Amino acid sequence: MTTTKVRILDTTAELFRRYGYTGTGLKQVVAEAGAPFGSVYHFFPGGKAQLGDEVIRRSGQMYLDLVLAVLDGATDLVAGVGDVFRGAAEVLRETDYIDACPIATVALEVASSNEVLRVATADVFESWTVAATDRFERAGIAAGPARVLAMAVIELLEGGFLLSRAARTTEALDAAGSAAVALVRGAVPSRRTGRRDG
Amino acid sequence: MTTTKVRILDTTAELFRRYGYTGTGLKQVVAEAGAPFGSVYHFFPGGKAQLGDEVIRRSGQMYLDLVLAVLDGATDLVAGVGDVFRGAAEVLRETDYIDACPIATVALEVASSNEVLRVATADVFESWTVAATDRFERAGIAAGPARVLAMAVIELLEGGFLLSRAARTTEALDAAGSAAVALVRGAVPSRRTGRRDG
Repeated sequence: MTTTKVRILDTTAELFRRYGYTGTGLKQVVAEAGAPFGSVYHFFPGGKAQLGDEVIRRSGQMYLDLVLAVLDGATDLVAGVGDVFRGAAEVLRETDYIDACPIATVALEVASSNEVLRVATADVFESWTVAATDRFERAGIAAGPARVLAMAVIELLEGGFLLSRAARTTEALDAAGSAAVALVRGAVPSRRTGRRDG
Repeated sequence: MTTTKVRILDTTAELFRRYGYTGTGLKQVVAEAGAPFGSVYHFFPGGKAQLGDEVIRRSGQMYLDLVLAVLDGATDLVAGVGDVFRGAAEVLRETDYIDACPIATVALEVASSNEVLRVATADVFESWTVAATDRFERAGIAAGPARVLAMAVIELLEGGFLLSRAARTTEALDAAGSAAVALVRGAVPSRRTGRRDG
């Protein structure tokens, strides 16, 4: 991928997080990306909708990779889930309450108004659910409950971001983390809750 | 309150749910409310920001009243929490996945860009947290854990709305409901989980 295209994608992702899809203009994208205006249509012939679709899918994948790295780097699943929420809270504080979920704002904006982008956000959430379900199954939780738990943990993270960004404190995200850890701890078979290397 | 003002507030609330704050124009508001254009500035001299502020606070209070009616109408707290999520899922299906949280879209849009509206959304979430904490305390849960639990249940509802609107199925909201019920059941002292009239 050319560096200009990457710069456009990264800039748009950042603007989506701050202002949402409707609030982000292509002129603003090229200005902040330091790219010529025509480059947006060169790389994204479908205009803002195509750019939005690629940004949603790319941001979703990058965020998943980030979260899985934290989860897989922990000594066990319960500790990993706690680490994910603590890390998210830290990033939120450090970025002045901007860097939360990269796609939630857009997902709510487009859910009833743009079918292509709605599907892109649905695909991202499903990819997160599948990845979390996989980790929970590996920890010994049955497939059905693992999928329910995966959705609940993602929902706690999303709800935590929403309330914490509004209040500009991480109290809500901390509460979400406590609840997520409690749910996961309650679901993992007891013989599997020890350290992975124990 | 005059009927025109109420019509403007209700129409704006509906447009916020569908298109968000940025995607809702005042021309669209007066057209759909069947009100003369000048009436917006008559009732809301501060324009869109003042209208937005009133809509957020009014929608937040109406939604709280609705949820508390469901919660207080149940035989016990655990059943009531389950009813809230089941009712929310039913409304979502019936309204073609539009009628979810009345303020979440706006809350994410304005969190980093409009301080007056951010505070309005923060006040609404705090009022919901306080009300839920009160219900949990009345069921015998200590104040500290009750507040954490209140936030977690609200976060599950919000996250459930987000994933369910994106996917256009209520699977995620059902998962959120299961998790919320499990958390509340685990927190209520066992002697208090029976029927209120038992």
